[in-house]
Amino acid sequence: MTEHPLYQIMHPNSVAIVGASNDLSKMGTIQLLNLLGGKYPGKIYPIHPQEETVLGLKAYRSPKELPEVADLAILTIPTSSVPEVLKDLGERGVRRAIIISGGFKEVGENGKVLQDQIVEIARVYGIRFLGPNCIGVIHPAFNLNPTMYPYLHQPGAVGAASQSGTYVTQILPFLAKSQIGYSQAISVGNGANLDLVDCLEYLGKDPATKAIALYIEGIKQPREFIRVASRVTREKPIVALYVGGTEAGARSSASHTGSISGPDHLFDALFRQSGVIRAYSVEDLYEWAWAFACLPLPKGRNMAILTHSGGPATSLADACNRRGLKVPIFSKNLQGKIRQLLPATGSYRNPVDLTFFMDMRVLMEKLPQIILEDPSVDGLLLHGIQGSSYFRSLTEVAKPWVNVPYEKVKKIFFPAMEAFVQLPEKYAKPVIASAFADREDDAVAFVQDRRLPCYRSPERAVRAMAALCQYAAIRSRE
Amino acid sequence: MTEHPLYQIMHPNSVAIVGASNDLSKMGTIQLLNLLGGKYPGKIYPIHPQEETVLGLKAYRSPKELPEVADLAILTIPTSSVPEVLKDLGERGVRRAIIISGGFKEVGENGKVLQDQIVEIARVYGIRFLGPNCIGVIHPAFNLNPTMYPYLHQPGAVGAASQSGTYVTQILPFLAKSQIGYSQAISVGNGANLDLVDCLEYLGKDPATKAIALYIEGIKQPREFIRVASRVTREKPIVALYVGGTEAGARSSASHTGSISGPDHLFDALFRQSGVIRAYSVEDLYEWAWAFACLPLPKGRNMAILTHSGGPATSLADACNRRGLKVPIFSKNLQGKIRQLLPATGSYRNPVDLTFFMDMRVLMEKLPQIILEDPSVDGLLLHGIQGSSYFRSLTEVAKPWVNVPYEKVKKIFFPAMEAFVQLPEKYAKPVIASAFADREDDAVAFVQDRRLPCYRSPERAVRAMAALCQYAAIRSRE
Repeated sequence: MTEHPLYQIMHPNSVAIVGASNDLSKMGTIQLLNLLGGKYPGKIYPIHPQEETVLGLKAYRSPKELPEVADLAILTIPTSSVPEVLKDLGERGVRRAIIISGGFKEVGENGKVLQDQIVEIARVYGIRFLGPNCIGVIHPAFNLNPTMYPYLHQPGAVGAASQSGTYVTQILPFLAKSQIGYSQAISVGNGANLDLVDCLEYLGKDPATKAIALYIEGIKQPREFIRVASRVTREKPIVALYVGGTEAGARSSASHTGSISGPDHLFDALFRQSGVIRAYSVEDLYEWAWAFACLPLPKGRNMAILTHSGGPATSLADACNRRGLKVPIFSKNLQGKIRQLLPATGSYRNPVDLTFFMDMRVLMEKLPQIILEDPSVDGLLLHGIQGSSYFRSLTEVAKPWVNVPYEKVKKIFFPAMEAFVQLPEKYAKPVIASAFADREDDAVAFVQDRRLPCYRSPERAVRAMAALCQYAAIRSRE
Repeated sequence: MTEHPLYQIMHPNSVAIVGASNDLSKMGTIQLLNLLGGKYPGKIYPIHPQEETVLGLKAYRSPKELPEVADLAILTIPTSSVPEVLKDLGERGVRRAIIISGGFKEVGENGKVLQDQIVEIARVYGIRFLGPNCIGVIHPAFNLNPTMYPYLHQPGAVGAASQSGTYVTQILPFLAKSQIGYSQAISVGNGANLDLVDCLEYLGKDPATKAIALYIEGIKQPREFIRVASRVTREKPIVALYVGGTEAGARSSASHTGSISGPDHLFDALFRQSGVIRAYSVEDLYEWAWAFACLPLPKGRNMAILTHSGGPATSLADACNRRGLKVPIFSKNLQGKIRQLLPATGSYRNPVDLTFFMDMRVLMEKLPQIILEDPSVDGLLLHGIQGSSYFRSLTEVAKPWVNVPYEKVKKIFFPAMEAFVQLPEKYAKPVIASAFADREDDAVAFVQDRRLPCYRSPERAVRAMAALCQYAAIRSRE
């Protein structure tokens, strides 16, 4: 793994950054700020033709003046300067680079010539690089984030490789809301030197990466992709969002990353052959990858549904059947055990619906345990994680009349939440939750922070569960 | 409209509430708190067998003691007491009720007998009621919210009628995040007296309701539904989520609201015949209804895509084609106008991708105007609304080095946002935005507060736009 060309890019002891200045409107400057603010522990060498210092760091006039051979160079400079700077870096002995600058193959014939030129320079000096026209990489556990977007939430176990920089960086607020964390994330841009397949190979070997998310506009070497992906999916799941299979998608891909895309059915076949799970939206891509990263695989497709709301119960049940999951009627024995804990208005056959019921311990602890203990159940979907969001709203409204004592309520039900988040490991079965509140709710945040996926709607939870089942079926066919 | 039995339920001058007490763990008490906290302007008469006052209001021992005939009675009491209380209310002259209590048809044969009993009592006294087994109603502009969930965001123009109480109340945090507002919302529960079709008739006539969202587990009188829905959809759009069309969905519906559901294809036909747009998730249900409530209908399916990120541009394009929308290449003339405003790395044929570009005025004002002026364009999808969320994150990270001056940036681009939100009205064309931040971002909140839909992912925006196109096609066939 340490020999893989991406290893040094993702674990550099020193970074030379070309294009950062003291001008805050420049992308290079913002990248350096994030590298500094993210507490990158290695050495940083800004390269700038005029400045003495850049954001307080000593600056160097050119790559030739670097005091040591930097492990990694990052270039965010005008397109026309890229070949010369890359050559100078090569002369100084630098062998790994990320080329952020755009204006290459994606803009047409002239850009293609320029791209061929940098590929040739890299070949001569033995440089391996990401880009051009990419956004860089993020390795949260290594405190490496030289992109234009700050990484503010906790590291995770999703390895991402993307032909879109936005889906590595601007997507971060979305990911943070479900506490979906990267192990490492790589934007490949035009993939002129290192491409998606290299990332797949690398992330496949990375021990911190438990699942891989791919955003694909086109694949250059389909056979290589199948070879590598087939090997990786025998050990860890890959979820892919492919957007080049329609006329408009293909056209947009070409002008975005210069990608040659192929017809949809061809990619369907390619994914099937490689054991890759296909998603159709960026939300699904990351939510499914996160479910894979956090949960054990189900042994079958028999789902239990548990909630205190009939609407979500029915939505979950309907969505399960639509996605090929079963919601079997529980055995009389299991029904009997459940029924003892329910009010008279509750349903107990599956879905289990507590109806209006304030005791969260029954919902979050007792019932899930009884249900998951049963060998007929392969996984659990629970809608209705709810803590402070409801009580705080109510407190605000009720203030003139009464004090709604949330802190007292919280003390009672949070121990049940502790038990709840341990369910997947305890029973080796997947559990996915949903809630209409996000992390402003303390119960939602609690669950998410402990790596139990909690998504925004019942249907999203079902889709993620169905992806787990799909991959489990692929693995069991081996 | 004022003659419709639901009118008085939604506009009561006085409410008798049976089941509220001074015990905060009781649902009736929470309902009264919300009625008070929501600043309901009418008179409130708590009915309680022992208490002298309930939450500071004078309480009455029984319906018979009511000092006037209340416009509406709300019952949240044990199942077995419902018939007697309903009778007493009838004796006192009360003619409108909401029966929250469950334990009727949805629990089996005994419950069915009880339900028949209250239907008969209502017939005798001429009472029209919602429920049983429902959650009540919300009429934000009338300050009427006697449910267990506070309504904290601004009123809107979506009329909701639902066989799930959760999808009227617990869904509120979700709706608030996209500033999706109700005109009026009605939970019908078992629909023993007033049912979904009555709601449809009523909301169809309500002038503040611009679009209707229906959550359906089953329909009792399909012919009545078709008759009323067909008439309503000639004037305003109806979006429906039907969840009873699968085996598990049907079973869950039966135990939730005692509904008799029918096969999926039958409901497909029923919706088609009535001009109803079918959604498959609760997110889509409300997001589409909100788009309908806010935007003009497109004249055709030719979409323009505008963004500063290539990934979302390609996702939008691909999703458009998958949903039957076109992303035509712009005319040379339009391309020329757009190109003048882009950096060299930008794409201008459609999708339009600015790439990294800090001038929000170009993205939010100049380009949308040029594009929407063009007669070949029927609607606009814009990804990348972004204001404070990015800058505040960056400020936090960059603090030790520099002060990132967001307030200065904001002054420059907010005037462009003003122009942006006026686009749909100015050009009589729909515009739907997407962003990976929610309302913690001031630009997202700004747009949403002015009724320009801004959803959480590119694919969600496309789905809503496709729903608009589908309904526009239905309307144009007349």
